[in-house]
Amino acid sequence: MAFKPTEYLPYDFANRRHIGPSPVEMSEMLNTVGVASLDALIDDTVPKAIRQKEPLAFGKAMSEREVLEHMRITASRNKVLTSLIGQGYHGTVTPPAIQRNILENPAWYTAYTPYQPEISQGRLEALLNFQTMVSDLTGLEVANASLLDEATACAEAMTMAQRVAKSKATAFFVDRDCHPQNIAVIKTRAAPLGIEVIVGDPAKMDASAVFGAIFQYPGTYGHVRDFTDHMTALHEAKAVGIVSADPLALTLLKEPGAMGADIAVGSTQRFGVPEGYGGPHAAYMACRDAYKRAMPGRIVGVSIDAHGNRAYRLSLQTREQHIRREKATSNVCTAQALLAVMASMYAVFHGPEGLKAIAQRIHRKTVRLAKGLEEAGFKVDPQAYFDTITVDVGPLQAAVMKSAVDEGINLRRVGEQRVGISLDERTRPQTLEAVWRAFGIVREDRDFKPDYRVPEDMLRTSAYLTHPIFHMNRAETEMMRYMRRLSDRDLALDRAMIPLGSCTMKLNSAAEMMPVSWREFSLLHPYAPADQAQGYADLIEDLSAKLCQITGYDAISMQPNSGAQGEYAGLLTIAAYHREQGQAHRNICLIPMSAHGTNPASAQMVGWKVVVVKSAANGDIDLEDFRAKAEAAGDSLAGCMITYPSTHGVFEETVTEVTKITHDHGGQVYIDGANMNAMVGLSRPGDIGGDVSHLNLHKTFCIPHGGGGPGMGPIGVKSHLVPHLPGHPLAGGDHGPVSAAPYGSPSLLPISWAYCLMMGGDGLTQATRVAILNANYIAKRLEGAYDVLYKGPTGRVAHECIFDVRPFDDSAGVTVDDIAKRLIDAGFHAPTMSFPVAGTLMVEPTESETKAELDRFCDAMLAIREEIRAIEDGEMDRENNALKNAPHTVEDLVGDWDRPYSREQGCFPPGAFRVDKYWPPVNRVDNVYGDRHLICTCPPMEDYAEAAE
Amino acid sequence: MAFKPTEYLPYDFANRRHIGPSPVEMSEMLNTVGVASLDALIDDTVPKAIRQKEPLAFGKAMSEREVLEHMRITASRNKVLTSLIGQGYHGTVTPPAIQRNILENPAWYTAYTPYQPEISQGRLEALLNFQTMVSDLTGLEVANASLLDEATACAEAMTMAQRVAKSKATAFFVDRDCHPQNIAVIKTRAAPLGIEVIVGDPAKMDASAVFGAIFQYPGTYGHVRDFTDHMTALHEAKAVGIVSADPLALTLLKEPGAMGADIAVGSTQRFGVPEGYGGPHAAYMACRDAYKRAMPGRIVGVSIDAHGNRAYRLSLQTREQHIRREKATSNVCTAQALLAVMASMYAVFHGPEGLKAIAQRIHRKTVRLAKGLEEAGFKVDPQAYFDTITVDVGPLQAAVMKSAVDEGINLRRVGEQRVGISLDERTRPQTLEAVWRAFGIVREDRDFKPDYRVPEDMLRTSAYLTHPIFHMNRAETEMMRYMRRLSDRDLALDRAMIPLGSCTMKLNSAAEMMPVSWREFSLLHPYAPADQAQGYADLIEDLSAKLCQITGYDAISMQPNSGAQGEYAGLLTIAAYHREQGQAHRNICLIPMSAHGTNPASAQMVGWKVVVVKSAANGDIDLEDFRAKAEAAGDSLAGCMITYPSTHGVFEETVTEVTKITHDHGGQVYIDGANMNAMVGLSRPGDIGGDVSHLNLHKTFCIPHGGGGPGMGPIGVKSHLVPHLPGHPLAGGDHGPVSAAPYGSPSLLPISWAYCLMMGGDGLTQATRVAILNANYIAKRLEGAYDVLYKGPTGRVAHECIFDVRPFDDSAGVTVDDIAKRLIDAGFHAPTMSFPVAGTLMVEPTESETKAELDRFCDAMLAIREEIRAIEDGEMDRENNALKNAPHTVEDLVGDWDRPYSREQGCFPPGAFRVDKYWPPVNRVDNVYGDRHLICTCPPMEDYAEAAE
Repeated sequence: MAFKPTEYLPYDFANRRHIGPSPVEMSEMLNTVGVASLDALIDDTVPKAIRQKEPLAFGKAMSEREVLEHMRITASRNKVLTSLIGQGYHGTVTPPAIQRNILENPAWYTAYTPYQPEISQGRLEALLNFQTMVSDLTGLEVANASLLDEATACAEAMTMAQRVAKSKATAFFVDRDCHPQNIAVIKTRAAPLGIEVIVGDPAKMDASAVFGAIFQYPGTYGHVRDFTDHMTALHEAKAVGIVSADPLALTLLKEPGAMGADIAVGSTQRFGVPEGYGGPHAAYMACRDAYKRAMPGRIVGVSIDAHGNRAYRLSLQTREQHIRREKATSNVCTAQALLAVMASMYAVFHGPEGLKAIAQRIHRKTVRLAKGLEEAGFKVDPQAYFDTITVDVGPLQAAVMKSAVDEGINLRRVGEQRVGISLDERTRPQTLEAVWRAFGIVREDRDFKPDYRVPEDMLRTSAYLTHPIFHMNRAETEMMRYMRRLSDRDLALDRAMIPLGSCTMKLNSAAEMMPVSWREFSLLHPYAPADQAQGYADLIEDLSAKLCQITGYDAISMQPNSGAQGEYAGLLTIAAYHREQGQAHRNICLIPMSAHGTNPASAQMVGWKVVVVKSAANGDIDLEDFRAKAEAAGDSLAGCMITYPSTHGVFEETVTEVTKITHDHGGQVYIDGANMNAMVGLSRPGDIGGDVSHLNLHKTFCIPHGGGGPGMGPIGVKSHLVPHLPGHPLAGGDHGPVSAAPYGSPSLLPISWAYCLMMGGDGLTQATRVAILNANYIAKRLEGAYDVLYKGPTGRVAHECIFDVRPFDDSAGVTVDDIAKRLIDAGFHAPTMSFPVAGTLMVEPTESETKAELDRFCDAMLAIREEIRAIEDGEMDRENNALKNAPHTVEDLVGDWDRPYSREQGCFPPGAFRVDKYWPPVNRVDNVYGDRHLICTCPPMEDYAEAAE
Repeated sequence: MAFKPTEYLPYDFANRRHIGPSPVEMSEMLNTVGVASLDALIDDTVPKAIRQKEPLAFGKAMSEREVLEHMRITASRNKVLTSLIGQGYHGTVTPPAIQRNILENPAWYTAYTPYQPEISQGRLEALLNFQTMVSDLTGLEVANASLLDEATACAEAMTMAQRVAKSKATAFFVDRDCHPQNIAVIKTRAAPLGIEVIVGDPAKMDASAVFGAIFQYPGTYGHVRDFTDHMTALHEAKAVGIVSADPLALTLLKEPGAMGADIAVGSTQRFGVPEGYGGPHAAYMACRDAYKRAMPGRIVGVSIDAHGNRAYRLSLQTREQHIRREKATSNVCTAQALLAVMASMYAVFHGPEGLKAIAQRIHRKTVRLAKGLEEAGFKVDPQAYFDTITVDVGPLQAAVMKSAVDEGINLRRVGEQRVGISLDERTRPQTLEAVWRAFGIVREDRDFKPDYRVPEDMLRTSAYLTHPIFHMNRAETEMMRYMRRLSDRDLALDRAMIPLGSCTMKLNSAAEMMPVSWREFSLLHPYAPADQAQGYADLIEDLSAKLCQITGYDAISMQPNSGAQGEYAGLLTIAAYHREQGQAHRNICLIPMSAHGTNPASAQMVGWKVVVVKSAANGDIDLEDFRAKAEAAGDSLAGCMITYPSTHGVFEETVTEVTKITHDHGGQVYIDGANMNAMVGLSRPGDIGGDVSHLNLHKTFCIPHGGGGPGMGPIGVKSHLVPHLPGHPLAGGDHGPVSAAPYGSPSLLPISWAYCLMMGGDGLTQATRVAILNANYIAKRLEGAYDVLYKGPTGRVAHECIFDVRPFDDSAGVTVDDIAKRLIDAGFHAPTMSFPVAGTLMVEPTESETKAELDRFCDAMLAIREEIRAIEDGEMDRENNALKNAPHTVEDLVGDWDRPYSREQGCFPPGAFRVDKYWPPVNRVDNVYGDRHLICTCPPMEDYAEAAE
């Protein structure tokens, strides 16, 4: 006898959980698209010439439970010691309420960058809090909404200084007490730009010889110095002064603004963000008001909506690479929004009194520690410090470090004869006693009489965090509700598809996310001894091997923290290779018109000249133009940067020709990995001529976007480039680093690893195939209503497609903006607007969306087309219509309704949920007003008062 | 030199995080209340005579970080082996998406029981899914929305059978193959009710001698038997047939309904709910339609709202103890809503194909396991089984069990010479191989050819889970959004105060909740060897000691899973004590009129006669009536059940007199601990004459309400009662158990323990004081608008107070319901309605609410009073007004507005948030319609279709 065995595989993560359409849905969709099978669609879409030869061989896919067990074993190979290494990374206590309600809450972590302000008011408020916090603590007027890490923030500050300084000098001074990784990244950045970096003692700085200078505060070995005189000297020389400051120290110490600094940077890691073996964390940058338009990164500002109500938005976007392209202030695109939100909530949670109390406690413990060492006869430096001291141990350095490890503590190796010790808010009396024991001192930490080692004139006298948001009631109940209210204002993946072309907003599954919170991954210092990070080493090795197999490259560098940083790292690698080959003169980079804005910005950062290649009528790279420009460049050709499949959403047949031309002229080929979600398992950049690519792990490999970061942009390279990859002062390599930490943001890597393990090679390939199916399904369903701008020769699109809505501007006065905002009424985030072609919408559904959600989107888009038609036909007013008035809010419903369409039509267009409708908290936000009346810190509290009168 | 040290203590959980009002707010509130200090208020409120002598001495309070570290160390003393013990508890895989989005999401776990349907539509839908799942799997028409555990469900089924059976027999037959804990709890329940329990072989059952019978399916030792003939025999005898069935087995096996069963019960634990060392899990009960009004527990039904739209609600509430009191079907009050939601989502996640596949895999593994044993010469029982087998090992039982433990596996000891093995969805080939090794068999699990050991005629032939909800797309994206949509429909503590009198809806902090998910707490089988549960033992010992100190009792039993079950356990303990004293005849229980409805229901369950004591005019117990009734009872007095402070929200001065009278007449005093939140640190029930109390850990000790369970109701007793506490067949004790697991729902205990550790004695006491302040503040602010029905002699209330809104019925036609629903418009859950006095509102703010939130509530209440006044003054229509039309929905706004008040007035009354307003998904729900047209399973799918046409 027998049951009839069911075919269903309940633990098949790839096909049942990650991939949206069910088998039945897929066959319906194939019907609609008009192909016999998924195989046929893929054969139709992906040119044979570029198909990969062998399927991905990763072994059997794991179930969610298996992968979590595997992660647990891997995690257990990381040893969590108490790291007192400092150097910009410190132990911190993440408030559980913030961990649970932000870091572990999909409403926060699945959100996109807040480019659509109407559906992003919650995180915009949190980021505005971050800016206010930074601005207050540094004493500078304007702050941005985070940068990738402190070291890159230092490098960004240097190039910003060069932009704004009136000094014509070409050298930049760097305090020798800057953290080594900051110095290293500054040097990496300076070299291709022709900036001479002078590392030295600030006391001997020649201000007249530099356009700017940066100082660490407190210094990497603990010194607390006043840089006021240096700032004065710099200003006299028309140069710019920068301070890289620990924000926690600034709660006690004179702030950079009070010293006259023009720019401040630093890391907010110790504001409740786990060290994570190096990241992700949010760096900050603040500057004088006069320099704000030169500042890189995103800036949240306050504006008004169509009803004149207060609304937040991203300000001054014209500075950014996606608008100004070659003239951008930097290639910064991804930020660290989720981590900035966490840090800002930490400040809200503790308030100024709490932060100050934490800083005071750390300082007093450091004084107690130093006293114990001094009384035992050790020489402790410096005399004035905040949380860090350096101890001379003569020839016993190794012995003391080892003895400390035996006590469960990592100290910092400083020079040959000293050790550094940095305390933090996790330090307890037992910690001090253990450190003393490592020095052979038996002593109890019991003398709690306050004592201080900061000169009176270095104490901070100004107030900070005076805004009421930092004085809200600190009960967890209140904090929890505040976080919930903010997240409810936003639309993220946990409520609806985010069909952003080029952004690959796919599922970030719970199983992938869980290990990120585990202490074995989160509590490691980036410079902890390697034998304590064996779990990370295993993970990085296996994930790298898988990414190599996926891309066809020979090695991976995990260092870059964003796609743009990956581009930059990749181009640096190519440049180093050319130098090595005696081809240092090669400096021309061919970039197609349709490239991501980061491409030319990155090329500029390595000192290359960008030559733009035209598009052919069908949207492909104009091959003749490409050939002509490559020939014109001749032996100056450094390389080209292309995206595959193209940003036009097409698998260009000519790609191998493009790479061949480049190689024939001695150039190297950079293939932007932004569109890898259309390639994994089907085609490999390394096989079609690529020498380097970056992979956006936060797109194709499931790291969540976090509302605008974190990201990871590791690069894969062919073997000839391996010797030229970025190195790290703490991890070896011949070349300079691009990031503060050797592996970028390693605590995110469990996500991508889990994804690869649970999908397996077949699952990853199927995901790609379904991503292509989903895009073609949308293209098909919208056929007739909207023109797809570019298609492949067989009429298919890749994993995304561009809808041309430009004609509606003429025919009905309807812009791409109007359509985007009207989609909010239907409960959708807009597709990518005006990239790569102005006035168009680029849609990328990803494989994670179900047919039902795709249909909901298509229904919404088709209904919008009918609304446009009504205007075209004169049935609806050109100015007063549901598109122009979109998005509609509850306020619209409450008020008088004098519109030529009903409340029902306005608020519940096809696609919108009825009971579960998402209501934007504001009407359309006025961009121009916001830039004209720039406010980048929290507005007065009365605007927060929510309770109606 | 020196900093000015800040006084602020950033890690003070008690005062900065748990307690709502800040010090500044507290002083403002004291001003309003009109007392000089918190001390003065407490002296004014809590009678001196009952104040406790010594403060709680728990040592220094821990910070959140310290407590998590402490928990980690404790957790590490639990050893997670693979338990194949079975006996009603099985390994299961909790889908990470469900863990993260439900178990770890405050929107789900901080919700209250869905008595207010308009703000509970999300969890009502999830519970309706649960009912549909149970009804389908069991093949019975009606299911309830969960019971406490399988064993109590069996006992409930027995008493229900007695209620509905036409047979006049007084005996109840129990299959000897029922799980031992089920038999034990049935016996406990039967004894005081005079039911004779016959445990025997079903083959020898005499149906004519019993009013009902229960069978285990599959049997505890694995047998799969068809009970159709037994059901026929029972029905012929007008008796009732019950099957206690494993719902996973029912996906393969003939269902109870098809056998003719009248009632089915069981546990849904293995539907994705971790074992948790015994709980919490959701038990289920289903029955024939004819018996639905006799079924205990909550039943979700489908009704309509004021606009005629579909709306869910709790049906047939008139059966329940809080309405019918003495005539209630049981004392069941708390359910296991959160766990039922998890189990229902597991079914939605897997669907029938997935569940069937899981069951088939388990079965096939069991067959492989048995074959390996048989081929090695072991005798394996039974021949027909699902997932459980029993192996005869002769005298080697201990050796095999030990050998299995060495392999990381717990087996079940059966009799003297056998071991039991139950497989589950976590079982892997390595598990089978390890079991074989434990039996000395070296064998690989590689023969995957399907084989089956279920007789053809026992296979299930009917369909199940046919409703579309169980066939929704199973992509995680879709599941995540479904869970989010449901939770968004509901109002829980994560958005607003829930001022429910007697329910103590206080903060469930993130730090308290986190350890619940840890594998060392969640993956233990309740009958795992004690040496594997040392962490739990430590936790239970320390928490018990703390609870003893708090209550003034000498010992704690953690067994009861709810407050009502605690009452029942406490009364059983008293009854056993009386028996021991030769006073078995004592059977009269004095209960004040104002008692919780569970009190008389519990007293009835131990076979006592309830005598109701009147209230005096001031709301206190009428002392003379009490004395008279005690005297009348004479030596029949078993005891009294009182609540302190009283359910009227007052610290009665006469309590010690009441307890003295009871003791003088030989009775024992049960003090209901529902109001312990007004006593902790100030007064101890054990000091004022209590002999037993239960503690609602889900009220005073921070276990979240989970939308209607879980709960924990441990009891404290004086030393003379310790020998009479409930025992457990697997953990010793002379008396029968009240719960399936020895420690009730132990995986919740880390919450209460963390709370005690982080608050410390001072913090706990301060929480009580502030709870009293918050209540008095509300009473004061509403003075003049609403009358407080009962106050203490100094004009103070305890931690809650009753507002008398009965006069408005006459003056304005406004009922307590109208006010409750109008509060939804202001974004609040209603206070407790009509308890303990019909037509009143009882408000308990708890200490966790901030002044701002209390003010928001008071503003809302005062505005409602003005709206009533407008009706009284004839300015507003008596029928068509904002109170009668409340709650208002978006649908109201979208439609035509023909009301004598504005949209603005209707939807944004004072107190309501503007941007962040909570919108109920339905208008007022029609209760009568729902009971008249009872539908207790999911309605057709078209009603789920959300997308507007």
